[in-house]
Amino acid sequence: MKKYEQIYNKYRNDILQGFLKNKQQLPSIRESCQIFKASQTTVEHAYDKLLIEGYITSKPQVGYFVSINQTRIKLHQQLDSYQSTHQTVDYIYDFRSQTISQDSFELSTWKRYLKDVLDNKKELSTYGDSQGELALREAICRYTYKVRGVLTHPERILIGSNYQSLLFILAGLIPKDSVIAMEYQEASQAKRVFESYGFQVIMIRSLDDGIDLRDLKMYDIDFLYINSACQGLKRKPMSQSLKEDLILYTQNKHITIIEDDYNGELTYASKDHYALQCMSNSDHIIYCGSFSRLLLPSLRISYLVFNKQYYDHYKEHKHEYGPTASKLEQLAFSKYISDGYLVKHVKKLKKEYKEKNKAMLKALEKYCPYPFYLDEAYLCYHIELPELDENLFMKLCQKKKIVINPIKNQQLSLSFASIPSSHIDEAFMTIKQIIDQCHFPVNTPY
Amino acid sequence: MKKYEQIYNKYRNDILQGFLKNKQQLPSIRESCQIFKASQTTVEHAYDKLLIEGYITSKPQVGYFVSINQTRIKLHQQLDSYQSTHQTVDYIYDFRSQTISQDSFELSTWKRYLKDVLDNKKELSTYGDSQGELALREAICRYTYKVRGVLTHPERILIGSNYQSLLFILAGLIPKDSVIAMEYQEASQAKRVFESYGFQVIMIRSLDDGIDLRDLKMYDIDFLYINSACQGLKRKPMSQSLKEDLILYTQNKHITIIEDDYNGELTYASKDHYALQCMSNSDHIIYCGSFSRLLLPSLRISYLVFNKQYYDHYKEHKHEYGPTASKLEQLAFSKYISDGYLVKHVKKLKKEYKEKNKAMLKALEKYCPYPFYLDEAYLCYHIELPELDENLFMKLCQKKKIVINPIKNQQLSLSFASIPSSHIDEAFMTIKQIIDQCHFPVNTPY
Repeated sequence: MKKYEQIYNKYRNDILQGFLKNKQQLPSIRESCQIFKASQTTVEHAYDKLLIEGYITSKPQVGYFVSINQTRIKLHQQLDSYQSTHQTVDYIYDFRSQTISQDSFELSTWKRYLKDVLDNKKELSTYGDSQGELALREAICRYTYKVRGVLTHPERILIGSNYQSLLFILAGLIPKDSVIAMEYQEASQAKRVFESYGFQVIMIRSLDDGIDLRDLKMYDIDFLYINSACQGLKRKPMSQSLKEDLILYTQNKHITIIEDDYNGELTYASKDHYALQCMSNSDHIIYCGSFSRLLLPSLRISYLVFNKQYYDHYKEHKHEYGPTASKLEQLAFSKYISDGYLVKHVKKLKKEYKEKNKAMLKALEKYCPYPFYLDEAYLCYHIELPELDENLFMKLCQKKKIVINPIKNQQLSLSFASIPSSHIDEAFMTIKQIIDQCHFPVNTPY
Repeated sequence: MKKYEQIYNKYRNDILQGFLKNKQQLPSIRESCQIFKASQTTVEHAYDKLLIEGYITSKPQVGYFVSINQTRIKLHQQLDSYQSTHQTVDYIYDFRSQTISQDSFELSTWKRYLKDVLDNKKELSTYGDSQGELALREAICRYTYKVRGVLTHPERILIGSNYQSLLFILAGLIPKDSVIAMEYQEASQAKRVFESYGFQVIMIRSLDDGIDLRDLKMYDIDFLYINSACQGLKRKPMSQSLKEDLILYTQNKHITIIEDDYNGELTYASKDHYALQCMSNSDHIIYCGSFSRLLLPSLRISYLVFNKQYYDHYKEHKHEYGPTASKLEQLAFSKYISDGYLVKHVKKLKKEYKEKNKAMLKALEKYCPYPFYLDEAYLCYHIELPELDENLFMKLCQKKKIVINPIKNQQLSLSFASIPSSHIDEAFMTIKQIIDQCHFPVNTPY
């Protein structure tokens, strides 16, 4: 350790351990030179370090004084003694939402695409287009047209690391006095954005099969945020007739739709359907799509398709935004899509999830006496449970090495996405046994 | 091609080419069966596809009608004939801002870390913590304490894909009637966020060496956004005395500082300095740091350090946010930092940029008769040019295969980051020659 560091450490420790108290004067530079048998430069170096790190302050012509309060001392001490709390969870079954199948994704193919981009250092050492790489916007434009019927142009596509950061940008472009309606069941991430901005958000009632149009018509709104692939109390894709009614009503009332098409292409239980966006004759729909459930959820790429009106707003400010999605992942992904791997992979996923869904349904019918229904887009079943000891439930799951979402409003959501078909029966049976152990003791009637 | 696709294609083409006009009735299903010699199921399949893709609509008991307008027909045609406009630029020198050195970054090391994470499929197939991976927050906490003096705890760190998306989250947590001050010179990305939210933004005058405190004191503000590593007209790191004055003033007035410490650790011309955050005795600073200029700009990882007040706000809503930064890059980066590579790499960069800066300064002194100054954090020189033919300038640069930022307000910004030291003299000489060719013809005095 260098001499100046020794001096610095000595005073730092004295301050943190309370031997030198706040506002107390330090020895002068000359005194410290004698104490430590060091040169003036060395002592000044140490004092400078204490100064810029905020332990002391200097009063010209007077001297150096400790300048730190208890909160900061505590923070320093905490950091000096911080032990990592990070641990990886060891589990057998992962029923949490937001997981995906580990089997079907060909990581080796994806690695090859990443490697190709990594070999191009020149490309990686520049900043990238704030709107998203053009090559990826072109690839997405073709993909989304083919698979979702979305009619657009690469110019109109905005790429971001997740749909929420895209919504944060979009919400900044819409008038501050806008009234936004969304389904009562709706995604909290979108609601968070609208509430962050202070927009008036109106929650519309849901019927079993979708948003309640009669309720919607009661309000005077400017925007409707809708998850077209997953709506209503039973979390279903929107029916063709509801789509037509909704398009007609919103067109007439000049309401702009923000369509969230989360996992719209991943149909394995319902019929294939297209996005709402492709049905608008008046360009009044802004569309959001995401890939996190198709490839790896750890791949952060989503996209937003502006209508002309909001694209023009965005364009005016384009230079004031920075890119959010990883350029490495964007470039690799654009080639992956262009070479047809994404369409192929989605096909494979649909087949796989169809099988898993079948196994899950079979297990539910066999063991589950409670009402349940499929949430196709989220790859899970929602089960309406009786009142349970929820803490005990979580503890028993942990003991059996099952990771699971906590029960919410007596509803348990189980995603079958990451569990191999052949294990689903056994996995759900285990959960059923745990549920049975968690019933509250039956009250004797009085 | 399957039979139903033939029928679908025939009608689709007829619609797009105008043989079937909007509102015109299609042949009935029975008629189409006869025309195409196909079964009813096949024709229904084709009509369904036209229906869900929004070409036609059905009126019960009446029949099928074309339902598409000219705008959408044009969009379909454009997409059918879209040719990629994507091209990679071929260049010799890249003077643009936002580039980095291509030499010093050990891509092979980084690839190894990426590979290690990619080999762990289980980890990658889950969604990740919306606040950022704990392992990375721990690594950043130690790094930022060591290198920037930032006093915090992994709990208080929020990781995002860029500082703007972090600011979008933060801005949503602060009161809507807040008044925010920032330097006149300041980053447009932050301004965009505050303006998106409709906050009152006050632009404070800059002096050569930093923000004008006297001007700041004229306003009644709630927040001060400041780039502590690069401020004032001469884009310098903030001096120790200004830091102390600013801390004192804002503490007394209960103003919260949002500190942007862009490239604060990358000192190669000025003395090392610490962040403002480490000097606050009243926890009134929210800190932002970024890695995009340290590793690859294509790596999208930034972080924000909350103070207690805003951490508490954030925590309340944590479940309503989604992760923005790539989990792959987060996990690889956390190991890269923990193993000491980041500190080592920053050291190397400082040495390299010191050398490049020296070469650039030498070239400027040799060839440049115009005023210029260094913008350390942005790794570039700003040159005050006389009036030029700016279009001609850009054209000549392109011809010489030099990519460069356009001249703005008669100011040219040249980043030396990506140009090898040994080429800087020649590269700048070329630019000087181009500048000389772009002077407007001298007006003869009248």
